[in-house]
Amino acid sequence: MTITLYDLAGAEPDRRFSPFCWRAKMALAHKGLAVETVPWRFTEKDKLPQPNAGRVPVIVDGTRVVHDSTAIADYLEEHYPDRPSLFGGETGRGIARFVQNWTETVLQPGLIRLVLLDIHRHIGPADQAYFRSDREQRFGVTLEEFVGDRVARLPAFRVSLDPLRRTVERQNFVSGNAPAYADHIVFGAFQWARAISDFEVLAADDAVRAWRGRMLDLYDGLARRAPAYGS
Amino acid sequence: MTITLYDLAGAEPDRRFSPFCWRAKMALAHKGLAVETVPWRFTEKDKLPQPNAGRVPVIVDGTRVVHDSTAIADYLEEHYPDRPSLFGGETGRGIARFVQNWTETVLQPGLIRLVLLDIHRHIGPADQAYFRSDREQRFGVTLEEFVGDRVARLPAFRVSLDPLRRTVERQNFVSGNAPAYADHIVFGAFQWARAISDFEVLAADDAVRAWRGRMLDLYDGLARRAPAYGS
Repeated sequence: MTITLYDLAGAEPDRRFSPFCWRAKMALAHKGLAVETVPWRFTEKDKLPQPNAGRVPVIVDGTRVVHDSTAIADYLEEHYPDRPSLFGGETGRGIARFVQNWTETVLQPGLIRLVLLDIHRHIGPADQAYFRSDREQRFGVTLEEFVGDRVARLPAFRVSLDPLRRTVERQNFVSGNAPAYADHIVFGAFQWARAISDFEVLAADDAVRAWRGRMLDLYDGLARRAPAYGS
Repeated sequence: MTITLYDLAGAEPDRRFSPFCWRAKMALAHKGLAVETVPWRFTEKDKLPQPNAGRVPVIVDGTRVVHDSTAIADYLEEHYPDRPSLFGGETGRGIARFVQNWTETVLQPGLIRLVLLDIHRHIGPADQAYFRSDREQRFGVTLEEFVGDRVARLPAFRVSLDPLRRTVERQNFVSGNAPAYADHIVFGAFQWARAISDFEVLAADDAVRAWRGRMLDLYDGLARRAPAYGS
């Protein structure tokens, strides 16, 4: 039975940029599960199945509705135990949380200073008004000011990737020889950036970029086939 | 059969401060293996069993000599598979490398700016001369200058712990409900600091400090019983 995923979309329905939705899509593909995505916009909170928290991803699997990317990964691991594992056991699941927390306290906050304005450029007029108001209130500056110094920020951003860089210099994936959910978490952030921004955040010779390329190749090029910028 | 571990010591033979040796000692205790430690000083390179890279930890297990903390963890996991696992499988081992790389590119470089001079205070005269010369050449400033602004550096250091903090706020250990080698890696760095410095790097109410306390309690208080400062 096909799982339905509510997936954040831009003005173009195929431009899918939520890092959290990308985690879920990569996890579903990792499990080899069929999925049908429904494009969803920031201002369509009433179109989500219940229960939800006003955000995506939300999946519907038969009669079950699961929201929040972490809950979705746990759900898939529990309900599809015979498919390839996302965590490789409880220790792997535990340490994947560390990778998630690094992604959410270092990587994503770093990326948002580089690409926030580009999100605004890719969403429809109704979403643009909501997004500008919500984010300018949250950050206390205009979107333009928020990313105005992004070129100057880039070197420090790249240094902040050192733990990731050293890892994928020495092994193919964050999770070792084969990708697992920790990779999907980190990749979701980079896929978010490249889905809406032509500002290349990684140098051409960066080992992180080579890893990103390996992630783009997974699952028949699932993420590479999606509308995005760069390689 | 008891395993022998060559373990970096200060002027007092019981003051053991190498973060890499602490990884190995915690890993040996995790496996429930008997160990006898040999105090070793920076200037005793000729006293190590062959092969070695001039550094500790080095272990001798029967006829086998293994050096380098990562190689020791891999060796213990391979040769003592029936004992509690350090990694919980290949995915866990892979992601533990990310935690290691975070520890070695963020945590340990942050700590060294706080406690380097305190190492010098705790080692014998022959080691002091070597240590000052080696480290001052490496860092290009005197030991005193290197840590001179440590009070000013402390807030940024504590912010750099956000990925760890958020993890141990939400679960008991880096590795989930139970400690594993990823915890030992991170703990080794904190145990290094507290073994040679009375400069408390963690605020009293920091969740990282509560986790450090849980680590100090493990294996009958192995690390808590060692000469060190603070709680």
